[in-house]
Amino acid sequence: MNAPTKIDTSAEALMANAIRVLTMDAVQAANSGHPGMPMGMADVAAVLYNRFLNVDPSTPNWQDRDRFVLSAGHGSMLIYSINHMLGYADMDMDQVRNFRQMGYRTAGHPEYGHADGIETTTGPLGQGVTTAVGMALAERMHNARFGDDLVDHYTYVIAGDGCLMEGISHEAIDMAGHWGLGRMILLWDDNKITIDGSTDLSTSTDQKARFAAAKWHVQEVDGHDREAVAKAIEAAKADPRPSLIACKTVIGQGAPNKAGSHKVHGAPLGAEEIAATREALGWTWDAFTLPQEVYDAWGAVAARGKAAREAWEARLAASDKAEAFKASISAPDADALAKAIDAYKAKLSAEAPKVATRKASEMALDVVNATLPNTAGGSADLTGSNLTLTKGMGPVSKDNYGGSYIHYGIREFGMSAVMNGITLHKGFVAYGGTFLVFADYARPAIRLSALMGLPVTYVMTHDSIGLGEDGPTHQPVEHLASFRAMPNVNVMRPADVVETAECWEIAATSESTPALMALSRQNLPCLRTEHVSENRSAKGAYVLREAEGARDVTLIATGSEVEIAMNAADLLAADGIKAAVVSAPCFELFAAQDDAYKASVLGAAPRVGVEAAVEQGWGPLLGQNAAFVGMSSFGASAPAGELYKHFGITAEAVAAAAKGLIK
Amino acid sequence: MNAPTKIDTSAEALMANAIRVLTMDAVQAANSGHPGMPMGMADVAAVLYNRFLNVDPSTPNWQDRDRFVLSAGHGSMLIYSINHMLGYADMDMDQVRNFRQMGYRTAGHPEYGHADGIETTTGPLGQGVTTAVGMALAERMHNARFGDDLVDHYTYVIAGDGCLMEGISHEAIDMAGHWGLGRMILLWDDNKITIDGSTDLSTSTDQKARFAAAKWHVQEVDGHDREAVAKAIEAAKADPRPSLIACKTVIGQGAPNKAGSHKVHGAPLGAEEIAATREALGWTWDAFTLPQEVYDAWGAVAARGKAAREAWEARLAASDKAEAFKASISAPDADALAKAIDAYKAKLSAEAPKVATRKASEMALDVVNATLPNTAGGSADLTGSNLTLTKGMGPVSKDNYGGSYIHYGIREFGMSAVMNGITLHKGFVAYGGTFLVFADYARPAIRLSALMGLPVTYVMTHDSIGLGEDGPTHQPVEHLASFRAMPNVNVMRPADVVETAECWEIAATSESTPALMALSRQNLPCLRTEHVSENRSAKGAYVLREAEGARDVTLIATGSEVEIAMNAADLLAADGIKAAVVSAPCFELFAAQDDAYKASVLGAAPRVGVEAAVEQGWGPLLGQNAAFVGMSSFGASAPAGELYKHFGITAEAVAAAAKGLIK
Repeated sequence: MNAPTKIDTSAEALMANAIRVLTMDAVQAANSGHPGMPMGMADVAAVLYNRFLNVDPSTPNWQDRDRFVLSAGHGSMLIYSINHMLGYADMDMDQVRNFRQMGYRTAGHPEYGHADGIETTTGPLGQGVTTAVGMALAERMHNARFGDDLVDHYTYVIAGDGCLMEGISHEAIDMAGHWGLGRMILLWDDNKITIDGSTDLSTSTDQKARFAAAKWHVQEVDGHDREAVAKAIEAAKADPRPSLIACKTVIGQGAPNKAGSHKVHGAPLGAEEIAATREALGWTWDAFTLPQEVYDAWGAVAARGKAAREAWEARLAASDKAEAFKASISAPDADALAKAIDAYKAKLSAEAPKVATRKASEMALDVVNATLPNTAGGSADLTGSNLTLTKGMGPVSKDNYGGSYIHYGIREFGMSAVMNGITLHKGFVAYGGTFLVFADYARPAIRLSALMGLPVTYVMTHDSIGLGEDGPTHQPVEHLASFRAMPNVNVMRPADVVETAECWEIAATSESTPALMALSRQNLPCLRTEHVSENRSAKGAYVLREAEGARDVTLIATGSEVEIAMNAADLLAADGIKAAVVSAPCFELFAAQDDAYKASVLGAAPRVGVEAAVEQGWGPLLGQNAAFVGMSSFGASAPAGELYKHFGITAEAVAAAAKGLIK
Repeated sequence: MNAPTKIDTSAEALMANAIRVLTMDAVQAANSGHPGMPMGMADVAAVLYNRFLNVDPSTPNWQDRDRFVLSAGHGSMLIYSINHMLGYADMDMDQVRNFRQMGYRTAGHPEYGHADGIETTTGPLGQGVTTAVGMALAERMHNARFGDDLVDHYTYVIAGDGCLMEGISHEAIDMAGHWGLGRMILLWDDNKITIDGSTDLSTSTDQKARFAAAKWHVQEVDGHDREAVAKAIEAAKADPRPSLIACKTVIGQGAPNKAGSHKVHGAPLGAEEIAATREALGWTWDAFTLPQEVYDAWGAVAARGKAAREAWEARLAASDKAEAFKASISAPDADALAKAIDAYKAKLSAEAPKVATRKASEMALDVVNATLPNTAGGSADLTGSNLTLTKGMGPVSKDNYGGSYIHYGIREFGMSAVMNGITLHKGFVAYGGTFLVFADYARPAIRLSALMGLPVTYVMTHDSIGLGEDGPTHQPVEHLASFRAMPNVNVMRPADVVETAECWEIAATSESTPALMALSRQNLPCLRTEHVSENRSAKGAYVLREAEGARDVTLIATGSEVEIAMNAADLLAADGIKAAVVSAPCFELFAAQDDAYKASVLGAAPRVGVEAAVEQGWGPLLGQNAAFVGMSSFGASAPAGELYKHFGITAEAVAAAAKGLIK
């Protein structure tokens, strides 16, 4: 019923229908997947690629390519179809035919790093849009530094109703509008359908008015009228604001009996409907077989991209900024940072300042930001608490993309997804702060940092009951454990000003692991008063103070509780008990050490773990004859010192626990 | 500079200034806290309470009271001041004087359960607004069942810029507009200030246009013009839509030198400015001393509330629905449910259906929903996947609040905060579904369920790599651990159709602990084919199959991996190794058992844990001579069976691990 009334055989229609057919055939073969979106948005995507988007499959990571983000990641066959037809070398028809199968690049949702031309992992709804905001912001910031010759591209996004219902979309569109990201163009698959049925079941928002309220340029088109779509994209490019194009589409367009229904969203069409769709589209070719004219049409798009890339490379070669540009998109200069941090640590060990580790982070950032020319810092409206703003950083705004400090607003999740986008875009080393407890708000984006292997640094201050009076809503107790449970995250909890510098060195030069730094609100003594050039924190845990003679007990602590462990060791020494103190700023890095090192640190004596948090996750460090001093409930509102006493996290308690193990 | 130009001594001005003075004095005494918001919104709050809001401090939980939610929870002194002056028995001046001190009810942020008249815990921004949406929805749903005589109240919210920047606010206002919650009135503290400085730093959204786009009634007033505020609230009540009143205020109003600046947001004013404020306000009374005329004015508000409560009680006494009404706001009928579940379990054990536990959940919900008359179900747009909709449930909409199934849309966080609000309101037993991996989106609200002790049930399906092709963005591996780390959450992962029924019985009758049910997408055999009336899952773990003779090994598993453990026990038996199998659907409930029971279940033999998730959290069940078969990385996209093999979670691997421990 929704099939085109006359068969359109122009090249662009063929390009679109090839997306439809590859999609329905691949989903059918997998007996799993989502045909509705790719079929519904095939016309829009064909126009976008055919007339506008510049990518070069022969050099997929050419820096000035346009970015395409499929925020509605369940429609992954859209991008797999397109990338196959564009000629990406790693996306042959065998990949398409084996959609969603073990060992193939064509995962159920687009996975960054699995195949070229996938700019970001999508599927968790709303995040693609927000990650794209980060890419578009990075483009403008990079442009401010290197000019139009070297940085001049667009960020296109396809998003569905789910993306626009998710709360993070509010954060995204507010940021994009505020930052005036005119090169971001959001193509909304406005098909009025969600999984449960009509959008009338769950929303009454006028999306166009909503985007206009956030200072976006807004248009609406028939998403199956290719000329109208092209005109809208042209108008969007011409307007200085970010643009929403509401593309009125029919979900599953092309399937004569199922299009327009939520039943086509996430299930194979079935053999009968597939045959009917071929008939309706006038598509005579077999499954996973495309005519040369389709490849020719898509090949022309790739050729245009290749020419654009070559022209850009010529400009780069001629530019006096070429070296700086290349450095900006390469790994940070780890040697330079190591040298700077070493000199800084020597000074610290001599001066032994007693500061909160959040303050220590600010001090370390002074060194990091002075050494790495392209850090992009920020905070979710807690700049004065997170201490993320260092001297000389100016704010990023639509009037000054040359700034390097981003006021993310009260948007922890949005900040985190934007940092993913900045990191994916390349050009900047991104970090951003909030309170550790609100890492929960950001968690789905931190998970994508980890899954994609993006070295974003999360500066999470106020990391325990040590924040005091703000009370249990603000006091993390389970957050260290919950992020230690997440694969590929370095949870770092430095104990003093020196460890904080070491952790920053690790985080700022990480290649493929995000860092979550848990930092104290309260002041902590400098424990590392003897300078060593070695980054001791890089091994995850180390003996901070060895026992005098054979150990009776090993006290293991992190962050603000290392001081408590040191005091406990003094108490025990007074009773003739020989205790070693191990500082363990990063469990993940310690887990990666060899057994001999681990044994040398942990020793054979009984162990007491100390952390103002739940015990979960301490197992590998504690072993069998062990005790733990920490939290087993939510916190409370009172001055920090009283809370530590109330919850029994004191040197006396640690000493008592040690004695209990020894006797 | 921002002080009132002439001193206003009418009773209402005194009421407002008393909030200001108590706030600044309490924050100063604590040397910690947030004076800016309570001082800025004091006039609005005085008008709201003085002329509109009905509460009765002598019967704080009177069901038909108006609800007041301080979404900007950092302004907690606003509600403490008011509740003190209204005469709440547990909020004497000693509480105010000891703001933020150990053992007092006046926590840094308002904590539900700490003091009467605190309707919800707030502080994590954006959630108060959304929880209020749940309260306002519950009010209409309850009204649909019991009529205007018994249910006829308003939900008032004070929110700041932070609440409106957080993404969840989008979910909240879209839901409220869609559901037509005309009795929800949101007073926005529109002071143009956030912690980092002017709102111009981080937002350009036209909030009034944004709310209008979501079908709200929108007004703007001078928040220091009490007559204008009163008129706006009247107009808001008269309009059938939810209402936003943008109250243009000066943060810290009353402090002559600091008002209007972000510096007054979260720090004490200091003795000098406090003296200047007293001078500017014409306030001659000492700290923590109020004149009788202030108590008289607030006392009149309390008296009006008391009269309203008494009139309502008379209507309730005369109502033929009185018994049903009282039952609806009381604990669910646990005896009836136990009986129904027992009969249902007997049938299951006889028929032994092989179904996914998500399907088993639907089947159990058929029993729960038929037995408890007031369940309110829903899903974040995954109804057909979560299987949360049972026969006879109609959708809730603005045209039919008599429905009992809520289409929450693609809003996991919003759904969860709304369920908190429904539960706090009373009248319904709330549950809602999404995929387990998206529990991350909802996590900050689940934390508030746990912190407040609200028995919300989270129906989290697709609970492991067993979901197959959707791939790593959709496959939880760390989620069980991350929620087991959170205090006061029962993480339940039933192994079959019988355990699922038992878990539902526990969840639906829980008094103060939320349940997170992790349910499989894939079919699982019925393992409990012998009927016992006892709810075995209630002990958290139990011996599903004892070894024949002394145990050589104990295999412990949860959910879909119990089948694997059973098969491994068969493999081991074939080799003459005697293995017991323990099913452990809820670690938290098991941790609450006595040592003798734990020892009887876990035994003295070596143990192998099996769960398609990370090992973290298994320590207490495994002990020292143990192995774990599970995940240590993110998942992949492929059919489920292949994934289990790929990641080595098989009966063969479990048997091999067992042998490794025994030899």
